[in-house]
Amino acid sequence: MNIHIATEQDQTEIHRLTANSGVFSQEEVDCVDELWGDYRRDGPERSGYYFIVARGDGAVAGYACYGPRPLTEGVYDLYWLAVDAQFRGQGIGLALIRQVEQDVAAQGGRLIVVETSGTPTYAAARGIYAKAGYLLEATLKDFYHAGDDLVIFTKHM
Amino acid sequence: MNIHIATEQDQTEIHRLTANSGVFSQEEVDCVDELWGDYRRDGPERSGYYFIVARGDGAVAGYACYGPRPLTEGVYDLYWLAVDAQFRGQGIGLALIRQVEQDVAAQGGRLIVVETSGTPTYAAARGIYAKAGYLLEATLKDFYHAGDDLVIFTKHM
Repeated sequence: MNIHIATEQDQTEIHRLTANSGVFSQEEVDCVDELWGDYRRDGPERSGYYFIVARGDGAVAGYACYGPRPLTEGVYDLYWLAVDAQFRGQGIGLALIRQVEQDVAAQGGRLIVVETSGTPTYAAARGIYAKAGYLLEATLKDFYHAGDDLVIFTKHM
Repeated sequence: MNIHIATEQDQTEIHRLTANSGVFSQEEVDCVDELWGDYRRDGPERSGYYFIVARGDGAVAGYACYGPRPLTEGVYDLYWLAVDAQFRGQGIGLALIRQVEQDVAAQGGRLIVVETSGTPTYAAARGIYAKAGYLLEATLKDFYHAGDDLVIFTKHM
């Protein structure tokens, strides 16, 4: 498995992986497409969105999107993390998180924030963040919907 | 005192008030200008930013900026709230919050989120949110800087 900065030829597979994840809504798929568009058009520094991909057997197995949070110094959001169903359970999510952390540290970041959902659908995702050493720092009850909390993980570098 | 939707003639005073608030950094002043530009160019629905102003004695005494949070249903962020120094202590901040709540309710919103700072500079702001019935739902330690926490207030409508 190989993790690298996402380039134009990754676009189709990133889109397909997001759409087929079984986790994201159409609005969320559209959001990833929009951030990808900004990333490709303006570049990561100007857009504020960085994409990295993990490739296994030549296919995109997963990707992450992160970037600096506006109006902060050294705070980075891990906006998106997705692993293709057929590649799950192989540590690819964790490997992507580690690469994000390396990149953020290299850019002088000191804090990574992950906002995710408290529903059972996201239990595996929350497990990966906990395993990666992220602290469940806040829960905002009934945020996305009644019964669907916003869960905020953080990690100080 | 009169609260109304912000129009083009409020721009200069909103900028001046933000720049002279004694609270906001240059980057934050620039951010307000940018949101204002989006609001005026694309309108509130397309930009996602709504500005309202409070006028007293003909001058802009304060303003608020709010809007729906992307990828949620019915969650609104109160992005900015500022009251001119010479108009403080008259309940204008609270009146602006009440107007935001009315507007959000009219748009079908069910939750308002306020992200602010935990420093002494923002003590008055935090006091107004507490007085307005907002719940201090989360504190992210050392967020903006070491010793400067992110404080999240919420109010369910």
